[in-house]
Amino acid sequence: MSHHAVDLIRAKRDGRELSAPQIRWFIAGYTKGAVAPEQASALLMAILWRGMSARELDVWTDAMIGSGSRLDLSTVPLPTVDKHSTGGVGDTVSLALCPLVAACGAAVPHLAGRGLGHTGGTLDKLEAIPGFRVDLGAEGLIAQLRDVGAAICAAGEDLAPADRELYALRDVTGTVESIPLIASSIMSKKIAEGTAALVLDVKVGRGALITDLASAEELARTMVGLGEDAGVRTAALLTSMDAPLGRAVGNGLEVREAVEVLEGGGPADVVEVTLALAEEMLALAGVDVDAAAALRDGRAMDRWRRMVRAQGGDPDGPLPAAPLVAELRTDRAGAVEAIDAMEVGLAAWRLGAGRAQRHHPVSPGAGVVLRVAEGDAVAAGQVLAELHAEEPERMETGIATMERAVRVGDAASPPGPRVIGRVTGD
Amino acid sequence: MSHHAVDLIRAKRDGRELSAPQIRWFIAGYTKGAVAPEQASALLMAILWRGMSARELDVWTDAMIGSGSRLDLSTVPLPTVDKHSTGGVGDTVSLALCPLVAACGAAVPHLAGRGLGHTGGTLDKLEAIPGFRVDLGAEGLIAQLRDVGAAICAAGEDLAPADRELYALRDVTGTVESIPLIASSIMSKKIAEGTAALVLDVKVGRGALITDLASAEELARTMVGLGEDAGVRTAALLTSMDAPLGRAVGNGLEVREAVEVLEGGGPADVVEVTLALAEEMLALAGVDVDAAAALRDGRAMDRWRRMVRAQGGDPDGPLPAAPLVAELRTDRAGAVEAIDAMEVGLAAWRLGAGRAQRHHPVSPGAGVVLRVAEGDAVAAGQVLAELHAEEPERMETGIATMERAVRVGDAASPPGPRVIGRVTGD
Repeated sequence: MSHHAVDLIRAKRDGRELSAPQIRWFIAGYTKGAVAPEQASALLMAILWRGMSARELDVWTDAMIGSGSRLDLSTVPLPTVDKHSTGGVGDTVSLALCPLVAACGAAVPHLAGRGLGHTGGTLDKLEAIPGFRVDLGAEGLIAQLRDVGAAICAAGEDLAPADRELYALRDVTGTVESIPLIASSIMSKKIAEGTAALVLDVKVGRGALITDLASAEELARTMVGLGEDAGVRTAALLTSMDAPLGRAVGNGLEVREAVEVLEGGGPADVVEVTLALAEEMLALAGVDVDAAAALRDGRAMDRWRRMVRAQGGDPDGPLPAAPLVAELRTDRAGAVEAIDAMEVGLAAWRLGAGRAQRHHPVSPGAGVVLRVAEGDAVAAGQVLAELHAEEPERMETGIATMERAVRVGDAASPPGPRVIGRVTGD
Repeated sequence: MSHHAVDLIRAKRDGRELSAPQIRWFIAGYTKGAVAPEQASALLMAILWRGMSARELDVWTDAMIGSGSRLDLSTVPLPTVDKHSTGGVGDTVSLALCPLVAACGAAVPHLAGRGLGHTGGTLDKLEAIPGFRVDLGAEGLIAQLRDVGAAICAAGEDLAPADRELYALRDVTGTVESIPLIASSIMSKKIAEGTAALVLDVKVGRGALITDLASAEELARTMVGLGEDAGVRTAALLTSMDAPLGRAVGNGLEVREAVEVLEGGGPADVVEVTLALAEEMLALAGVDVDAAAALRDGRAMDRWRRMVRAQGGDPDGPLPAAPLVAELRTDRAGAVEAIDAMEVGLAAWRLGAGRAQRHHPVSPGAGVVLRVAEGDAVAAGQVLAELHAEEPERMETGIATMERAVRVGDAASPPGPRVIGRVTGD
């Protein structure tokens, strides 16, 4: 039990700034076991309380990166650029976005994660494609970036391991909801990934980790600052997550929606966010190509097919379908006033699309497909959503949750744009 | 790892009040191991941040008492009353106070602790008396209260064990300095002790845990409220601890000073605090006897001798003396501007009077005897203090510390009274 750790906790608790050696000692000490978990969690709570200065945060993030090794993408002969979303419901954007940006001429090394709780994980979605491999390793990733220009795969064990341990601790000690801790967790992994540029999609609203615009802006500014200080060109878009993005929520169902977008169709809001992020990414990468055209004319679809094939999947193969399908109908005529992203996310989770614990499997065909959007007029008896599940008990709890998710009233206005803010490093 | 614990941490973190079942579940869960130490420390930091309401604090304290058993002193045929000091330097008051109050007709069940760091522990002081036993057990304590009216002894293992575990955790996680946590730690032990009345001596100043008057008043009010809510008549005095109390700092040296007080002499400030506390204790116990007279006429001394004998010590036996004695002299004439209690406490600790870790032995003869008080005029070369130690290395570091402790300047005013405030339950 370290007395040095007590001094450090007391300093932060009393609102004093931690020195760079103190922060590096703590991150290394916690990773090696010299700092006890009860000391680390007390420090995390003090950080949640007192915050971190920009200087502290730069060092903290750098120390987390230094707990593992940083990928070297210098042998990729294209400008590299990635995106990261803070997590929403029905956010299937990465699937179409990565091949789209690659089709325009940048390389996208997209290391993604799995879902936990009500938000889905990109790796879970792609694994709904039979045969799709997410473990490429560093060499496999680089080879695929050189060959295809885009890869969506799992992070290796050596990518910011301190963040993995601290995140597990934060999860059980009520210290997740700290803007500096969220920012450093995300940015340590993205900087370690080796990308030269990064666009952040900061979700804000009922279905997101951050529910108010001011906090979302602060998180975006903090992350952009961290990226720029580490030499990664970084920008952020704030996008609304009150209602689910698009119509599909669930792994295979979202793959199908992403393919619709790549075919030039798909829900308008998914296309809006995909193109906005693509334009930011291409601008940061210094590539002057029209993303909308690449989506329209099939170049993005072609790149998607190459990426899926390179990772062992069959782009023409059937996606898994859940055996049970139910319909949720409205018993009154009117208009769709609100679709609550959190409730839809929980419904999809309970239908089997998500997991309650790490390493649990997910049901690739389960989830929700909305048949209406906010602002739509509906007739009595009209179908609001389709529910997909493998087991009757899951269907039952999913339906009960979905009944709370869609509110039909007398009149409703159509939703505003998804992109509601932008933060750059300038 | 409990998810219930996470909800509880998040509630306190966000400034919400914890329910009684939540608090009872947490205290029991931590004691049994169902709540992990890293969850407990995060909650403690959140409590340090957000505080606790009076209602939360009552339940928290009661749950700590309920983690063990409460002593039943109902067979003692006298009103019971105890005192507790929040810890100072040279605070030898309990030794004379307990027999004094017993001599006046109340019973004093004084469960005391050991020293750690710069403040001394009453049990360490009494153990300087050869043969003195501090482990009486509940039955031995009650028998001695019936027979002698006063006992100063160690708390049993079953007295608020949750407090013992939480205190050990607070010590290594920077969560000691929280007024509700300090208050509940002290009061859980004192209420569990079974005393019907209690007077608190809240030390404030450079040599105390609390250095500012406002915090000391808040701590006093909090503890008095906790006592009254638990049915213990409680009052508090605030006493200044900028300079050490009395002249002696160190175990055997303080016993000698306490005996001087019992002989009707001793330093004026020790007598002032002893009589002020005795008067509060007797008032709460409903005993209308003049404490000053009982001190003057030898009744208190007689009770001291009976108590020491009952606990296996010889009141006429020699006290241990350290083999090395050095003198600290001033090299200039002037007046004693300040004697820093913290520095004197550290000097005594380094001389061997204190311990660096629990269960280490202490040197019973080591310590400091001041030969001047604040405000005294001094001549060049005059002795300021005697230092006592067993080993030359300890003497060396003790002298170096003491040189910083006494400041001689051109002119100084005498110190004000020690008792600087009073808080009652009315």
